[in-house]
Amino acid sequence: MNTTSDQGGNSSRRKFIRQSALLSAGTLLASATPFVAQGNASLRPLANVATRGYAARDKSGKLSPFTFERRPLGDNDVLIEIKYSGICHSDIHQMRGDWGPQPYPQVPGHEIAGVVTAVGKNVTKFRVGDQAGVGCMVDSCMTCESCTHGLEQHCDNGATLFTYGNPDKTSPTGITQGGYANNIVVRDHFAIKIPKSIRLEDAAPLLCAGITTYSPLMKANLKKGDKVGVAGIGGLGHLAIKLAVSKGAEVYAFTTSPEKVADIRSFGAKEVIVVDDVARLKPYRKTLDYMIATIPAQYDVAAYASCVKVDGTYTQVGMPVGFQLTISNIGLANDRVNFRASLIGGIPETQEVMDYCAANKIVPRIQVIKAGEINDAWQKVIDKQARYRYVIDAATI
Amino acid sequence: MNTTSDQGGNSSRRKFIRQSALLSAGTLLASATPFVAQGNASLRPLANVATRGYAARDKSGKLSPFTFERRPLGDNDVLIEIKYSGICHSDIHQMRGDWGPQPYPQVPGHEIAGVVTAVGKNVTKFRVGDQAGVGCMVDSCMTCESCTHGLEQHCDNGATLFTYGNPDKTSPTGITQGGYANNIVVRDHFAIKIPKSIRLEDAAPLLCAGITTYSPLMKANLKKGDKVGVAGIGGLGHLAIKLAVSKGAEVYAFTTSPEKVADIRSFGAKEVIVVDDVARLKPYRKTLDYMIATIPAQYDVAAYASCVKVDGTYTQVGMPVGFQLTISNIGLANDRVNFRASLIGGIPETQEVMDYCAANKIVPRIQVIKAGEINDAWQKVIDKQARYRYVIDAATI
Ligand SMILES: [Zn+2]
Ligand SMILES: [Zn+2]
Ligand SMILES: [Zn+2]
Ligand SMILES: [Zn+2]
Repeated sequence: MNTTSDQGGNSSRRKFIRQSALLSAGTLLASATPFVAQGNASLRPLANVATRGYAARDKSGKLSPFTFERRPLGDNDVLIEIKYSGICHSDIHQMRGDWGPQPYPQVPGHEIAGVVTAVGKNVTKFRVGDQAGVGCMVDSCMTCESCTHGLEQHCDNGATLFTYGNPDKTSPTGITQGGYANNIVVRDHFAIKIPKSIRLEDAAPLLCAGITTYSPLMKANLKKGDKVGVAGIGGLGHLAIKLAVSKGAEVYAFTTSPEKVADIRSFGAKEVIVVDDVARLKPYRKTLDYMIATIPAQYDVAAYASCVKVDGTYTQVGMPVGFQLTISNIGLANDRVNFRASLIGGIPETQEVMDYCAANKIVPRIQVIKAGEINDAWQKVIDKQARYRYVIDAATI
Repeated sequence: MNTTSDQGGNSSRRKFIRQSALLSAGTLLASATPFVAQGNASLRPLANVATRGYAARDKSGKLSPFTFERRPLGDNDVLIEIKYSGICHSDIHQMRGDWGPQPYPQVPGHEIAGVVTAVGKNVTKFRVGDQAGVGCMVDSCMTCESCTHGLEQHCDNGATLFTYGNPDKTSPTGITQGGYANNIVVRDHFAIKIPKSIRLEDAAPLLCAGITTYSPLMKANLKKGDKVGVAGIGGLGHLAIKLAVSKGAEVYAFTTSPEKVADIRSFGAKEVIVVDDVARLKPYRKTLDYMIATIPAQYDVAAYASCVKVDGTYTQVGMPVGFQLTISNIGLANDRVNFRASLIGGIPETQEVMDYCAANKIVPRIQVIKAGEINDAWQKVIDKQARYRYVIDAATI
């Protein structure tokens, strides 16, 4: 059994199901560190790894405790004991079926930070005891043009395996299971090194919110003093502000929540615009060099994009229901901006943002919660009450 | 009474209505050349100009003969006797209320070609007898940054006056009335010189279909041999092919009409892809340097845009119902292209495409029809039966 994600036909699927059945007979009991490891010469378990998590059971998205199994540690895998797991709006969208029907039970979570407790025999990137994280993906073909150029999220063979809900022959549950759990088994390449200088609870949100905003910001080739707009100041947006400010940009933050204004200033924004009406955008028409929108719902894209200078770029990173965004084509024609959408970032760039934030003391504003509070926290995310990222203490799972 | 389009308040509106009432008493009877003109020293009529046209009466969009008046010739105006008027899909969309409620009766048409029959006393650009055309707009503030840089369609004062259906204090009907008519009064700046080397019936479609595709193609800075995709091969698309080919591009044409294939090859396309299923787009994934889409309806934008290389540009010029285009944001994130929308082009660039086409013998494939055939022709446009631009012989109006 290996970790590649080629989409086998029915025969390999049947084979997999048989294999899983055999393996599950030898499943280890859940424990914080199920393997005795000595340096990098960890024991390679032949058995699945028992895991406790929180799973959605149906499209209500209500989460409840779920005991399941991870695949046995492969030669290129690391086992991470999860310490913290961030809550992303995407978790909610996906569990509720907003992006299409889902398999259940499904454990969400793709902002995963913890400690390596076992490594496969080929692994040199990590040693037991290292801090490590997992973001939005856990595998890809690793051989195509995109994968070999650090764009594993755009694998040319369509083999990008996202952290939860993707069909996965190697997973005893048949799908990838995410980070609202006490451990995860992941191919070493897809685990991110977390420097000792950053706390794990602060590192977790960098693995989705951080990279998702960092990647397009870097692509924008900002010059010092460039005016950057950030629309939607939640988990992603507040990190976008901090990252853009740290790169020397003058940041204009657009929010619909007047009660966030003081916080947003403290993140370094030069101006905070409370958009209770799109008319509030008018004074900013064609003033910004670049703009990033994290709003994960339908909104008036062309009105916001009108704040960007002609031929500037506007990047949408928030993913709305059905992934569908309805845009006024005539509005966009008048804006004359480049509209782009962006989806996370590759593994090397995820490592880059982690190292950059650790070195520059850029951390998210988080609220650590217990596992029993997840459902409440989700509701608060929906109600725009999060300040600004909930992080689950995995010890409470 | 002047031709500026500032939006007066109620008092100036009332004043205008009084004025119109007075003027209409002196309306000239319709005639081919209602003014005696000697060189550029034409007589300035104090009366409205009588016009025959075809107007929509309600959102059925059914057209019928309509007698109305144009404003008197102002000092900066030219009077054009219309010879030909192209039929654009936009005419249909707007008359049917697809882009919002409309005032009626409204005369559509913004591909207008004719002969100057009178000029205002300040006019030096035209002489009586010159060939002249009018495209999608007939006025703007003329003083703002955009207007003074040849981008009158993006007037910073919002004073762009489109050729039909826009509130217009200078018009006896209260709105601009378009080119399905036997004459038009227009500010000289907004009339395009039509070289003698191009027939008026061929020139007409250049004034919308031509400029609308030429402008983004020029903006794309194509190099010789660049691969250019054109999606939707109707009035706009077939001109996009001819223009791109003439600029040295290798053109890939995407159509849903298999019966158009031979024609499309004759326009110079290197390959014609019949997209009976978006799966047909797959072999072209990331192969094109640039793509322009003229499809004036909802379609799978991200699937088409996937044909463009990473960081390439995809321009939407077709305007769907409600101007609203729903785009798969995750599809666009995977495409990693710049999505832009574009709306016509400015007056200098419209003159440029006219001169370029005249010099390079680039003409649309047209079918000249009589006024009585307009309603049938519209239905054929909707049914994708146009080959490729209907042009009304205004002598039949
Ligand atoms: Zn996320
Ligand atoms: Zn790959
Ligand atoms: Zn048109
Ligand atoms: Zn202007």
